[in-house]
Amino acid sequence: MPARLDIGDDGFEAAFARILGAKREVTAEVGDAVAEIIAQVRADGDDALCALTSRFDRFELTKEALAIGQDEVEAAVRDCPEDQLEALRLAASRIEAYHARQLPEDARWTDEAGVTLGWRWTPIDAAGLYVPGGTASYPSSVLMNAIPARVAGVERLVMVVPTPDRALNPLVLAAAKLAGVTEIYRVGGAQAIAALAFGTQTIAPVDKIVGPGNAFVAAAKRQVFGHVGIDSIAGPSEIAVIADGGNDPAWIAADLLSQSEHDPSSQSVLFTTDAAFADAVEREAEAQIEASPRGRIARAAWEANGAVVTVRTLGEAAALSNRLAPEHLELAVEDPDALLAQIRHAGAVFLGRHAPEAIGDYVAGPDHVLPTARAARYASGLSVLDFVKRTTVTGLTADAIRAIGPAAATLADAEGLPSHAQSVRLRLEQG
Amino acid sequence: MPARLDIGDDGFEAAFARILGAKREVTAEVGDAVAEIIAQVRADGDDALCALTSRFDRFELTKEALAIGQDEVEAAVRDCPEDQLEALRLAASRIEAYHARQLPEDARWTDEAGVTLGWRWTPIDAAGLYVPGGTASYPSSVLMNAIPARVAGVERLVMVVPTPDRALNPLVLAAAKLAGVTEIYRVGGAQAIAALAFGTQTIAPVDKIVGPGNAFVAAAKRQVFGHVGIDSIAGPSEIAVIADGGNDPAWIAADLLSQSEHDPSSQSVLFTTDAAFADAVEREAEAQIEASPRGRIARAAWEANGAVVTVRTLGEAAALSNRLAPEHLELAVEDPDALLAQIRHAGAVFLGRHAPEAIGDYVAGPDHVLPTARAARYASGLSVLDFVKRTTVTGLTADAIRAIGPAAATLADAEGLPSHAQSVRLRLEQG
Repeated sequence: MPARLDIGDDGFEAAFARILGAKREVTAEVGDAVAEIIAQVRADGDDALCALTSRFDRFELTKEALAIGQDEVEAAVRDCPEDQLEALRLAASRIEAYHARQLPEDARWTDEAGVTLGWRWTPIDAAGLYVPGGTASYPSSVLMNAIPARVAGVERLVMVVPTPDRALNPLVLAAAKLAGVTEIYRVGGAQAIAALAFGTQTIAPVDKIVGPGNAFVAAAKRQVFGHVGIDSIAGPSEIAVIADGGNDPAWIAADLLSQSEHDPSSQSVLFTTDAAFADAVEREAEAQIEASPRGRIARAAWEANGAVVTVRTLGEAAALSNRLAPEHLELAVEDPDALLAQIRHAGAVFLGRHAPEAIGDYVAGPDHVLPTARAARYASGLSVLDFVKRTTVTGLTADAIRAIGPAAATLADAEGLPSHAQSVRLRLEQG
Repeated sequence: MPARLDIGDDGFEAAFARILGAKREVTAEVGDAVAEIIAQVRADGDDALCALTSRFDRFELTKEALAIGQDEVEAAVRDCPEDQLEALRLAASRIEAYHARQLPEDARWTDEAGVTLGWRWTPIDAAGLYVPGGTASYPSSVLMNAIPARVAGVERLVMVVPTPDRALNPLVLAAAKLAGVTEIYRVGGAQAIAALAFGTQTIAPVDKIVGPGNAFVAAAKRQVFGHVGIDSIAGPSEIAVIADGGNDPAWIAADLLSQSEHDPSSQSVLFTTDAAFADAVEREAEAQIEASPRGRIARAAWEANGAVVTVRTLGEAAALSNRLAPEHLELAVEDPDALLAQIRHAGAVFLGRHAPEAIGDYVAGPDHVLPTARAARYASGLSVLDFVKRTTVTGLTADAIRAIGPAAATLADAEGLPSHAQSVRLRLEQG
């Protein structure tokens, strides 16, 4: 059974604090092993990639076969059922339409001191996209990682994907093609991150690496950070649902379990003003777990990290949800917009009774790469902004530096930086 | 002497690659010591802060004296010369005016499938601002770190500053007051980062920590990352100048030395189309180093990490500068806007002969916290965007989920996630 809390209970604050503080992720200590793998790839390049792939993915890889070519991609596309391709195309076009609205604009103005100011956004040159292999190899994640980069204008979009025992989901390659990925390599783990960061004979280095991965991949991303950019380190999935009594309990149970089924460490929390509804959701969840092919995983997560919290008002639910700062938040209430106004911290919000979180995993349009583990307090989901950077612009005339230069020289003097002051004063004297 | 390169030389590519690859920063191995300090602060709170302050900053600190109160700030302001306060006020108002234009806008629309989409930006609740003590305690940096947070709408703006031997620059407190800092604590080092991340009896925890610091502070920020957000880890300062022969060599020499004087590991690079001008700048730099009170530091940096590169065209200079991705870039040429169009990677650009980089350190308006060590390939300077986060919004009606739900269910099936599919299909059947 999930934890059952009521905000009026004596022990509520302590019990809720335990949910907030729960460390659900087990981080393996793989730092040293990863450092060795990175060093090996930096020293031996392609040869290291082939040797490590043989060791970890259990098949012989030659340098010539590192890249997955156009032919292999086309063959994979032919292997995919048409209904899946059709769904993928709808998803890609909706994701692209949403992200295209995020492109930031340049600015330029001249202020009353005569100073020209502004900024310019430019895409990064090359992005690396890590795609996990095996059961966590999701074509939807290929779209969600690659499309924002393409929309941003990134020229080289380099995907790496491990193919353990040579297995590769053809729909992943179809998604890569749809998303506009420009290079694909059949390599994974820390060795793939090292290759993206430092380059090998076959793989030219990139500027930023995004995408989820296992403990080795996460450790490798931390270690190469600073040499290249990385996105944030993703933790187990989370959902919070704020629901009044006017919902079908089966719908809400399915929504909660759609996160529980990801991983035993996934978190699902229901906040509701209706205790009888809460009971009904718990009963429905039990029935759905019994019937689900992934019931064993869902049960493990729901019992260890599930919670059903009854509150007196929706405002109380919003306040508790803000403390949780969930990755996904459903507002399954009569007036979701009124409640949204009270939400301060959440990765993605779903409005109304007909908006299950899963719609956002695939076809809604917003990104499904979102902050986890309460990071929504300070971080945002993946977007076009992750693939562009801003250069600030300052232009001065002789008159403009006469207007604001003396203050700069005064502050440089106060900070004890004489060449700073001189670089300004020379222009005041002679300007 | 700085390195002297010409793009036509045989060994040019290797020599320029050495400049690109130079590891100028010495990173002390302080990870274990920092982990111990963080554990001590988490266990003992204020007591640990006082004990560690006594040990590292050499004075007795009581819990009651941890906070720097309004009275002390007002007294410090009275200690500051009026011309410095006036310059600080001009800087603050210009920085605020620039950053106010960066506030991102919310969006909301309904597409042809009837799906309501959009995003909302919200400020983080509490930001921690680390201010170094001693000689690197710059009031300008207080403004550059705190003002974007205040403009973003951050409610708690918590500054920590070490006061070794009780010394504290009054202008730093004046800057904090001007910038709208809401709490100040006289504590520094890894212990201050731990207090900001985890809280103590006196210091409530924050959500994100920004600001430069020494190796202990940098290591502590890496270790608390994930529990709170952090800004990027700043390295030694850098400047690149692209200049034609039409500049006063003394002006350009001063600009180059204004970065060299920061630190022996600072980098200053001149690209010019005019070899005689390059010679003149080198002579001027030598004369200015001789005359400068910080000449010893400037000489160390200029000789170890300075470079003068002659090129045939300004386009060649732009291409080399893009490989360098410098923190600061001056375009001291006749038509700086034409050259700007060729710049892809730089933190801050200064246009024209009358725009020394130092103007951007103090009063131009754009932030002076900028990406270093080639990070401008993928990162931007500090801005209002660092203190807000975006929540995506998706709203569906019964009709809207009938329009896009089937594709989501198909993809959930393809990815083997049955509860995802069910959460959609239940609404299709009953919607």
